[in-house]
Amino acid sequence: MDAIEVIVAKRDGGELTAAQIDWVIDAYTRGEVADEQMSALAMAILLNGMNRREIAGWTQAMIRSGERMDWSALDRPTADKHSTGGVGDKITLPLAPLVAACGAYVPQLSGRGLGHTGGTLDKLESIPGWRASLSNDEMLSVLRSAGAVVCAAGSGLAPADKKLYALRDVTGTVESIPLIASSIMSKKIAEGTGSLVLDVKVGSGAFMKTPERARELAETMVALGTDAGVRTVALLTAMDRPLGRAVGNALEVQESVEVLAGGGPSDVVELTVRLAREMLEAAGISGPDPAKALADGSAMDAWRRMITAQGGDPDAVLPKAAETMVVEAPASGVLSRLDAYAVGLAAWRLGAGRARKEDPVSFGAGIMVHAKPGDLVRAGQPLMTLHADETARFERALEALRGGYEVGPASTEVLPLVMDRITA
Amino acid sequence: MDAIEVIVAKRDGGELTAAQIDWVIDAYTRGEVADEQMSALAMAILLNGMNRREIAGWTQAMIRSGERMDWSALDRPTADKHSTGGVGDKITLPLAPLVAACGAYVPQLSGRGLGHTGGTLDKLESIPGWRASLSNDEMLSVLRSAGAVVCAAGSGLAPADKKLYALRDVTGTVESIPLIASSIMSKKIAEGTGSLVLDVKVGSGAFMKTPERARELAETMVALGTDAGVRTVALLTAMDRPLGRAVGNALEVQESVEVLAGGGPSDVVELTVRLAREMLEAAGISGPDPAKALADGSAMDAWRRMITAQGGDPDAVLPKAAETMVVEAPASGVLSRLDAYAVGLAAWRLGAGRARKEDPVSFGAGIMVHAKPGDLVRAGQPLMTLHADETARFERALEALRGGYEVGPASTEVLPLVMDRITA
Repeated sequence: MDAIEVIVAKRDGGELTAAQIDWVIDAYTRGEVADEQMSALAMAILLNGMNRREIAGWTQAMIRSGERMDWSALDRPTADKHSTGGVGDKITLPLAPLVAACGAYVPQLSGRGLGHTGGTLDKLESIPGWRASLSNDEMLSVLRSAGAVVCAAGSGLAPADKKLYALRDVTGTVESIPLIASSIMSKKIAEGTGSLVLDVKVGSGAFMKTPERARELAETMVALGTDAGVRTVALLTAMDRPLGRAVGNALEVQESVEVLAGGGPSDVVELTVRLAREMLEAAGISGPDPAKALADGSAMDAWRRMITAQGGDPDAVLPKAAETMVVEAPASGVLSRLDAYAVGLAAWRLGAGRARKEDPVSFGAGIMVHAKPGDLVRAGQPLMTLHADETARFERALEALRGGYEVGPASTEVLPLVMDRITA
Repeated sequence: MDAIEVIVAKRDGGELTAAQIDWVIDAYTRGEVADEQMSALAMAILLNGMNRREIAGWTQAMIRSGERMDWSALDRPTADKHSTGGVGDKITLPLAPLVAACGAYVPQLSGRGLGHTGGTLDKLESIPGWRASLSNDEMLSVLRSAGAVVCAAGSGLAPADKKLYALRDVTGTVESIPLIASSIMSKKIAEGTGSLVLDVKVGSGAFMKTPERARELAETMVALGTDAGVRTVALLTAMDRPLGRAVGNALEVQESVEVLAGGGPSDVVELTVRLAREMLEAAGISGPDPAKALADGSAMDAWRRMITAQGGDPDAVLPKAAETMVVEAPASGVLSRLDAYAVGLAAWRLGAGRARKEDPVSFGAGIMVHAKPGDLVRAGQPLMTLHADETARFERALEALRGGYEVGPASTEVLPLVMDRITA
């Protein structure tokens, strides 16, 4: 078999055989298929698609490229959540300890931010001392002691996906549902969770801009998980406006702690509780009420154990940006629009995100949103506060926000927070 | 500008701007755009196409990536021919000196064979002493003394094309009419010829399997040449069966010398004379009759001057393969089919071609065809003689020929030798 044969088959609209898929993933991982061959294949897949059988084979081949974790020695069921990423999406932070407090183990491998969406690991790293990199033994030990662990995937997990993801990122081949679905699911299946809830975001701040594309991605991933023996369910949720009020690393940790303390913005609380219920149901746990676990402090206890077990100090003062700037309402009326992408891009330019993998992030940078779509505002009232380490960053952030919010006579429609639920 | 922006524009079915094309070709030549980015773009171009404006811009950008030759100091018009390649296509060998003998200068940059089609330089290199690599000054001097020169393109000519061609070869992105047309025409325009005749082959042994694809390629190239100020015409010619009787390097030189001596197979003579007339007409030369120049020895004189000027000995004994094997007619009847691709592949396996750029070719290897489609044959009569340096090569060559020829009660139709003529 050779790479050209596989590329040409997909280029000409054909279906790849199981043997072709297994060979090309394995040979690419070993470096026998070159980057320029894999990127041509990725473009052919993006433009000509893959069917369900091909996607399943592609996912399994990526899983087989590395190790597969196994939590069967644990005495409770495992549950995980994956979000396709959004602006202000800090849900993993309160959710993982909350679900742990309700009786499941949550072994979550997370990622870093790239572009206008933040990464869970970047957020948690704003807590002094907290470590994202754990060995498999450390991961098991944190899981046993805290019930939840959030850490970086080791290099042994789906290395084919790691290599392919980096390649797609620079070759314009990210936006392919078969490649996105197999990338996410290969890592989640290899991670060894028994059940999985997918939070597929929809809207300007999300990867999937339309409900149709989001539904297609969700259905593809639910089928992949189910076929691999993972109880999988997906929610389609709103990402036309930011989630909660905080956008930025330490700012989002602060908001997450407020939620764990029983407070916090209503949309963050609602989505956290809803996702916790889905995870518990998928894990076969009935009884414990996530809303109660937030109110009675047991979720907060699990959070403190989890942070401490990974070297962090849950009582430490979080990093703060040196400079702030207030964006005021330009008129009196209703905040009819607050575009998630504009806010995410502005936060990124303030220093909360990175342009390249190797760049550092500013932990204190970001945006606090003081009004959400539908809120009445008065001219001159603060709409947002920008946080940055240098004032020089404000100008380009303001540029990103231009046209991203509107105060009008009446509210325009926003997407419902939870738009749909997809099961196998 | 960055590579991803350009890739995504074409991926999403858009038209590339002139600035995007100029930038991406220049940045790729300088190594700023990586191979894996260019291969993704090439696949997007293959699948989504380019319009006439984009193809012209792409071609001009590749020409600008290197030097452009200039023959305006010469006292006679220049004319060149390019064939898209076929099996037994040795036409350049008799054609270049023939057109020189009729009064034009023929400055021809040629290539080497890859896959089942042979390369002009490989054929000429079977002449002891003959050199394919000439400096620009040497090229001019051979042109002045012999009227024709056939040599390898220097590295300074369209380096972007050289790099892109090697990339397309390993990434399944060869079969794109915009990329094929711009690759051929960038070299021919940079070569500086004043007029150009394109021999676009059609059939199993050609790059273009159908008249429709061949016509599209021909029209695209004629438009590119005309726009660049080169008088350009194209012929669509048959490549369903081999051209002439010899397939292989030294075997084809021998056949070419027979044509220059006034003999040779009728199809080779007919096509050589027809292409010579087209080249002379495009160069604005009327009067000299190519058929006469073959008969009176003036074309042979030009050939001997050309070979000698490039270090070759026109009287040298050509390399011969050590082993031969005769393929006999399986029955009596009419040879109804002799598939060009099967014969090309068999010759390649006998050693006449190379699998990788760096492989050597066997000068003596190849096939002599003793019967052409339409010929009456008797069972047991020799149909072909295979030539190879080792008998071990015969088996895989016979495998390639299996099903590639047929003796039946009546002749099936073959393509007319010259199928169409395309002008601006």
